[in-house]
Amino acid sequence: MIYLDNAATTFPKPNEVYDEVINCMKNYAANPGRSSHDMSLRASTKIAETRSEISSLFNIDNPFNVVFTVNATEGINIALKGFLKKGDHVITTVIEHNSVLRPLNYLKDEGIETTLLDVDEFGLLNLKMLENSIKVNTKLIVINHGSNVLGTVQDIDTIGAIAKNKGITFMVDASQTAGVFNIDVKRSNIDLLAFPGHKGLLGPQGTGALYVKEGIKLKEFISGGTGSNSSEMIQPEFLPDKFESGTLNTPGIVGLGEGIKFIKKIGTKNIREYEEKLTEYLLEELTKLSFIKVYGLKSAKNRAAVVSINVSNIDSSKVGYLLNKENIAVRTGYHCAPLIHKVIGTEEYGTVRISLGYFNTVDDIEKLINALIYIGNN
Amino acid sequence: MIYLDNAATTFPKPNEVYDEVINCMKNYAANPGRSSHDMSLRASTKIAETRSEISSLFNIDNPFNVVFTVNATEGINIALKGFLKKGDHVITTVIEHNSVLRPLNYLKDEGIETTLLDVDEFGLLNLKMLENSIKVNTKLIVINHGSNVLGTVQDIDTIGAIAKNKGITFMVDASQTAGVFNIDVKRSNIDLLAFPGHKGLLGPQGTGALYVKEGIKLKEFISGGTGSNSSEMIQPEFLPDKFESGTLNTPGIVGLGEGIKFIKKIGTKNIREYEEKLTEYLLEELTKLSFIKVYGLKSAKNRAAVVSINVSNIDSSKVGYLLNKENIAVRTGYHCAPLIHKVIGTEEYGTVRISLGYFNTVDDIEKLINALIYIGNN
Repeated sequence: MIYLDNAATTFPKPNEVYDEVINCMKNYAANPGRSSHDMSLRASTKIAETRSEISSLFNIDNPFNVVFTVNATEGINIALKGFLKKGDHVITTVIEHNSVLRPLNYLKDEGIETTLLDVDEFGLLNLKMLENSIKVNTKLIVINHGSNVLGTVQDIDTIGAIAKNKGITFMVDASQTAGVFNIDVKRSNIDLLAFPGHKGLLGPQGTGALYVKEGIKLKEFISGGTGSNSSEMIQPEFLPDKFESGTLNTPGIVGLGEGIKFIKKIGTKNIREYEEKLTEYLLEELTKLSFIKVYGLKSAKNRAAVVSINVSNIDSSKVGYLLNKENIAVRTGYHCAPLIHKVIGTEEYGTVRISLGYFNTVDDIEKLINALIYIGNN
Repeated sequence: MIYLDNAATTFPKPNEVYDEVINCMKNYAANPGRSSHDMSLRASTKIAETRSEISSLFNIDNPFNVVFTVNATEGINIALKGFLKKGDHVITTVIEHNSVLRPLNYLKDEGIETTLLDVDEFGLLNLKMLENSIKVNTKLIVINHGSNVLGTVQDIDTIGAIAKNKGITFMVDASQTAGVFNIDVKRSNIDLLAFPGHKGLLGPQGTGALYVKEGIKLKEFISGGTGSNSSEMIQPEFLPDKFESGTLNTPGIVGLGEGIKFIKKIGTKNIREYEEKLTEYLLEELTKLSFIKVYGLKSAKNRAAVVSINVSNIDSSKVGYLLNKENIAVRTGYHCAPLIHKVIGTEEYGTVRISLGYFNTVDDIEKLINALIYIGNN
């Protein structure tokens, strides 16, 4: 199958990821941080290694500020529900994923006020509008770094500088960019960074993390055994234990560590260049086809390797069905990002989303284009 | 290494578990429930299969009432924090794990009142005392089915009948029993059942589930994309989607499915009989050693394959260290169950916990006993 659904989860993974997952499961998948026998210590050490790999990738000083989660969504929930208090105002955008929109919708009932900033047809946020929306009770700006519908990448350096200047906490959802784009929590003044392990970081499903800057105080979320302060009924206050209750996904996390090592070996710069080149080629070929409508930015610059299209007047789900018959995997519909579709005029049928990964090739794109030509002409 | 730390996580897993995890990762680890291409559908189908395996194992009618979690702790948090409201009273015991005690401690600040019932030196709850502790505002009884410190198994059939009779919701933490003991949600009138996938169910770490009986209403917990109602900012109200936001741990869940199939092939009755026989042998051999103090029930009946001991006056962590040098893995300390240690008089140093699994043998126990004799004599 030609897999063009990498924005949902990347596939395949580097062989090192498969190998370490199975090596862990067969040889040292004891409970990390609980016991003091060799297997448990080995599991703990390998988990610490992944924490360090993540830290160095995003220029995080202290690996203990990295909390493992099951996916980006959990990290976003820990951050939003743990940080915002009654009376607080939060600024976000209409291009966000439901992983941000739904927690904020939930928090409305707890007295938290949200401003949803518009984006233009290319998915870009107007930074002047952002500055103007800041109020005295604005406590948080939360921004989708790269859109999972349009691929549009926001200027987090500038947004981070605005937030810092106004003393507002800055949170980034890097679901579509972590592992591919150069993310530096210091350069972009990021206070909270949530990301999945199973997308651009090339780790297994069931992994993700949340970076919490030193000094940012979050309310406890999942309470329970942490292996630390074991004789006390009170959740530990220190990171990462405060947010890592219960047994971790050791095989997943060590697999993620291998995914990041692979990325570092290739270099995010090279990965991004390769994906950008592929995306540019895809955009060029798509725009040659008169019956195809391409959404978002015209070029691959400032665009993650995600391209939403529609084919003539054919329902997106039908296009997905026909592509699947040609052995090509894409996602169709709303992509869990409900509000952006009004902006781009696709609220009725959604879009066909083509999302590329590091293991895709020009040949994959050619086969997709041929299949689309066939669909468009039949 | 002789692995006697199965109460923390079972090791090893059946080969079928390893094989399916890697088969999934290499061949169909797309995002389940999101796209409609073959790989995503295959992932969804395999996840549905595990949901069905769980359902039939615990006599659950509708697999949609089974919510996947990352571990038992997450399920317990979803249940306790989602069910209890200000002014509610909940009854539990001092033998609970921190996965129950810490969420209840957290809920104290939200105006939820907890009664912590004592247990006797064997870890057994007095059911008369339980009945007497019921008040007009008692909304929930939550009970640890099998203790992770003493192995003591509570009589959930009778407790469930009491709860049903009084119109109180009944929740069971089956962390130490799921997969080994015969659990039937109907027979025991269980409304909420939380359990890990990586212990007795022989699945990979990063898995667990929560059964929510039809009609039990829980507040949303982790909000986000579910692949369903994708065009809406409101979290779906139906199960399992309400509590399964973000990408699931597909490889883990399909591995868990294989663990349960293995259990069904052997039969929980046979697994329990084997573990009970091993535990009986362990207890017999331990009680022959005058320098060893064994805690809890005298026999393996009504005892999960968990035995806590101390050796003379040697600190439990030192015993663990010495056993590890002999290549034997046990856990030492408090085991994330702080309150039971006062009952058994181990609040100062904790215990050495020996926990057996289906893959342990009589030979493992003999080696442990020899090592303990060596430690006791030196």
